[in-house]
Amino acid sequence: MTKKRIAVDMDEVIADSISRFQEWYGIDFQLTLSLEELRGKNFHEVVAPEHQEALRGYPNRPGFFKDLPVIADSQRILSEINQRYELFIATAAMEFSNSFLDKYNWLQQHFDFIPWRNYVFCGDKSILNADYLIDDNAFNFERFRGEGILFDAPHNVNETRYRRVNSWQEVGEIFL
Amino acid sequence: MTKKRIAVDMDEVIADSISRFQEWYGIDFQLTLSLEELRGKNFHEVVAPEHQEALRGYPNRPGFFKDLPVIADSQRILSEINQRYELFIATAAMEFSNSFLDKYNWLQQHFDFIPWRNYVFCGDKSILNADYLIDDNAFNFERFRGEGILFDAPHNVNETRYRRVNSWQEVGEIFL
Repeated sequence: MTKKRIAVDMDEVIADSISRFQEWYGIDFQLTLSLEELRGKNFHEVVAPEHQEALRGYPNRPGFFKDLPVIADSQRILSEINQRYELFIATAAMEFSNSFLDKYNWLQQHFDFIPWRNYVFCGDKSILNADYLIDDNAFNFERFRGEGILFDAPHNVNETRYRRVNSWQEVGEIFL
Repeated sequence: MTKKRIAVDMDEVIADSISRFQEWYGIDFQLTLSLEELRGKNFHEVVAPEHQEALRGYPNRPGFFKDLPVIADSQRILSEINQRYELFIATAAMEFSNSFLDKYNWLQQHFDFIPWRNYVFCGDKSILNADYLIDDNAFNFERFRGEGILFDAPHNVNETRYRRVNSWQEVGEIFL
């Protein structure tokens, strides 16, 4: 029997990019951005209009994707998933062309059990031929051929169309 | 009716990377590598053993993928294909992590009608959800879910399992 294939997003799913926004926003404006404030919103809805442009530019600044913290339990659960499924990492890296090498190196460092052959840097995720896609952006599921599984993130709390997981523990309960 | 989706490889299909091998090999060893010599062979079969390591390293050297010549007629035919199909560029960039930005910039420069959302940098091309894949490496078709169309290249002349096209003219005859 061929293994089922699972594709997994990076930002907000295995890599904590919100923490980088919080960190840089704190440095630039001496202000904090709490996860509570961000619930159900995008950054531009919670920060002052004069700070929005800076925030929007962060992912294009060199270093944004470097050394991001790993989302809790993702390494352990994915290493187990990797035994039983074909596992791919699929990230919309094309949006931020400065991010390629940082993302590649980050994966090599933190998920060394996933070979580079199973990395996908793309834009439109409907190009993925997989059975499942674990992602925090529901728009990626709209034309996806498999089943989308929504990884909980502050910005997506009001999304109800897809199965939601709140943690990697819950991902493990589904797949392991 | 939804459009059929065509994925197109870069090296040896739209980007002439053999010419870069020839150029650098000429600079390093004052020798020429003709396409005739390369027929049915890989580089390591036609160059002297003591030159093989250098050649194998070329794609990892900065600049290898920069300013590669465009394969004849690929721009014109793909711009027409782009009107009638969903067109993606899918390249095994993960093998050469120095290549990301050069490949991205090359596509922006020479194929500006293809949006970055339709770029895919990957390793294993079985991850592509497309109806057709135009590629010079037959191994990419083995687990591909659609139809593989083999773009003629010196190294693949003995491959007979897949439909072969010898030029972008011939690709146009199939799809337009």
